[in-house]
Amino acid sequence: MLTPEKQFEIIKRGTVEIIPEEALKEKLKKSYKENSPLKIKVGFDPTAPDIHLGHTVLLEKMRQFQELGHEVIFLIGDFTGMIGDPSGKTETRKPLTREEVLKNAETYKEQVFKILDPEKTVIRFNSEWFGNMSALDMCRLAGMETVARMLEREDFKKRFTEGRPISILEFLYPLLQAYDSVYLKADVELGGTDQKFNLLMGRQLMKLYDMEEQVVIMMPLLEGLDGVQKMSKSLGNYIGINEPPDEIFGKVMSINDELMLKYYELLSHISIDELKELKKGIENGKINPRDAKESLAFEIVERYHGRKVAERARENFVKLFRKREIPEEIETVEVKDEGEGVWLPKVLKEKGIVKSTSEAVRLIKQGGIRVNETQIDNPDIKLKSGEYVVRIGKRRFVKIVVK
Amino acid sequence: MLTPEKQFEIIKRGTVEIIPEEALKEKLKKSYKENSPLKIKVGFDPTAPDIHLGHTVLLEKMRQFQELGHEVIFLIGDFTGMIGDPSGKTETRKPLTREEVLKNAETYKEQVFKILDPEKTVIRFNSEWFGNMSALDMCRLAGMETVARMLEREDFKKRFTEGRPISILEFLYPLLQAYDSVYLKADVELGGTDQKFNLLMGRQLMKLYDMEEQVVIMMPLLEGLDGVQKMSKSLGNYIGINEPPDEIFGKVMSINDELMLKYYELLSHISIDELKELKKGIENGKINPRDAKESLAFEIVERYHGRKVAERARENFVKLFRKREIPEEIETVEVKDEGEGVWLPKVLKEKGIVKSTSEAVRLIKQGGIRVNETQIDNPDIKLKSGEYVVRIGKRRFVKIVVK
Repeated sequence: MLTPEKQFEIIKRGTVEIIPEEALKEKLKKSYKENSPLKIKVGFDPTAPDIHLGHTVLLEKMRQFQELGHEVIFLIGDFTGMIGDPSGKTETRKPLTREEVLKNAETYKEQVFKILDPEKTVIRFNSEWFGNMSALDMCRLAGMETVARMLEREDFKKRFTEGRPISILEFLYPLLQAYDSVYLKADVELGGTDQKFNLLMGRQLMKLYDMEEQVVIMMPLLEGLDGVQKMSKSLGNYIGINEPPDEIFGKVMSINDELMLKYYELLSHISIDELKELKKGIENGKINPRDAKESLAFEIVERYHGRKVAERARENFVKLFRKREIPEEIETVEVKDEGEGVWLPKVLKEKGIVKSTSEAVRLIKQGGIRVNETQIDNPDIKLKSGEYVVRIGKRRFVKIVVK
Repeated sequence: MLTPEKQFEIIKRGTVEIIPEEALKEKLKKSYKENSPLKIKVGFDPTAPDIHLGHTVLLEKMRQFQELGHEVIFLIGDFTGMIGDPSGKTETRKPLTREEVLKNAETYKEQVFKILDPEKTVIRFNSEWFGNMSALDMCRLAGMETVARMLEREDFKKRFTEGRPISILEFLYPLLQAYDSVYLKADVELGGTDQKFNLLMGRQLMKLYDMEEQVVIMMPLLEGLDGVQKMSKSLGNYIGINEPPDEIFGKVMSINDELMLKYYELLSHISIDELKELKKGIENGKINPRDAKESLAFEIVERYHGRKVAERARENFVKLFRKREIPEEIETVEVKDEGEGVWLPKVLKEKGIVKSTSEAVRLIKQGGIRVNETQIDNPDIKLKSGEYVVRIGKRRFVKIVVK
């Protein structure tokens, strides 16, 4: 077992906030001294999972906890999923059947066990405790928080202010999630920064139950390929872990240098020291960012498809680049990012490469534009700082340097 | 069975609002035609009952429904009473044990069966259905209403605006009460005007359950002896049905003429036609209001203590009046009520009967002032239009005519 100090350093990597850090240090010390693992709780939706790299940020942190010898609880919130929205008034989802929940759980396993150690992962369903709970106890739970406090949650506040309906049931959800922590006696709960309110509710409820409060660890929401918006399927800026290997490899190669370092921090298994070396090397020019990106792409493909497949994907990518005869010398244009990324069609138009932004949009939709040899399909694509080889049609190349 | 039209007339007596009147008429017609009684639901608190005339307004309406042949459900909301407030944040009461609930129910019975027909009264406890309900179903119920709608309820709105806490549990209470109606398949729910929000919630929930909606009948909140504020124990302006007969008799004799007619409408068993006659008689001077008041006092004492006791109470009252030697000719002063009643100490001071209002307040506190030969103990006493014989100390009399 690593020392508590070393463990803390590893756990802290990539986190946005740990509340409170001191309590985590204490828990790690105690766990080390008594040789008893901490209970790490992470909640997941019971809806059909199609995991992309954004989700794996949490999973990688869970894996780290496993490697440090702690107990990781993969909690599927199936009880909530079974409720649905009887009034049809709110924006919550349709109720899932028991069968659907179990099927989704299997799909989860297939995917997450590419990261987590199946031997060390405890999968729990919260219907286990809520399924046997009485209406009376649910009412008691509802008595533990106030309406005003719930309306402090950003999304509730916004909907309330805008006059959009919030069902009373939705006010129970944070309490249910918090009660999960009480029931599981969680030492730590992991979640994205968007979960802060609910994660802290867990601390509060544990206090009301006279328990030691869980430590809350928040991970950032991973930016998608555009480097701007949160990775999400609906935005089309994602890398799904079940995508074909060549696709994953190409997509990773398409991200900018800044984002690459973030991905390294949050997704790569290289050590903290190696990460420091990498950053320094890129800074002083000793490491070519393109090579680092290739290593990252390789690591990620290998994780989800194995070493052999990853090697083939790398070869394919290199061949493809050669085959497509990217000229040694490419026209280079420079643009400045004002903070939100630059819209590719606008750049292409301004630099005279296409006649209008709508032409560029049409080309993208037809599959006629590639960025770093990856075909793009989102006309809203924005580029952040970095270098991009853009191919328009078969033979037209331009290198866009975004500063 | 009376015709639906006649039944409607009797039911409507004294009500503030029937929502909707047409639906009640339809239900009465159908019930008459099919010879099937309507289900009348009335909810009561499970806390220790100490019933005063204010409560009996509802009970009298229930009795009328019984006499018309309908089924009256005396619903004790014991489930709610068993929850209490775990956080201590809200103003809800402490949880009751099963034993306390049952004991309170017995106390209720002793009292309400002086008005209701025990043979025709169905007593139900809502723990019967909520006690077996699952947390899942409670969550589903919570999904049937929105936060915004709950905050429309006056008391919630007020507390929310003032920053006073409202627990989420309290948002469930109206839904619980509404679900009672669903479970019982109520045709009619009776309640005070202060219950309007919850009563209408019953209609709404029944609609969501695809049921015929209950009709809501609202009764006024009875004014207390002062004729101004709602009758309540804490205000000291009440007549408890378990008070000694002489006390009840004297208290009824102390109310003003306007309030007497209201009490007649809401509490007396005289028929609608007799009530009309009475009003006319008082108006054209053929009936002495004092005699009418005596009849009312007699009727009320008889109801709770029997005829013999009532006769004795009447004799005692008359004797007392004589014994106390109220002079035939009493100094008379006139004051004008600006709408909120006139404060007795102020009148006594302004008319030179006492030196200061504080002297009058002290006298009241010492039991040295009687209004219509009933000792008063509330220094805040306000008189509304009517005639009052006020005795200060042993021998000083003044007649106050409030216009």
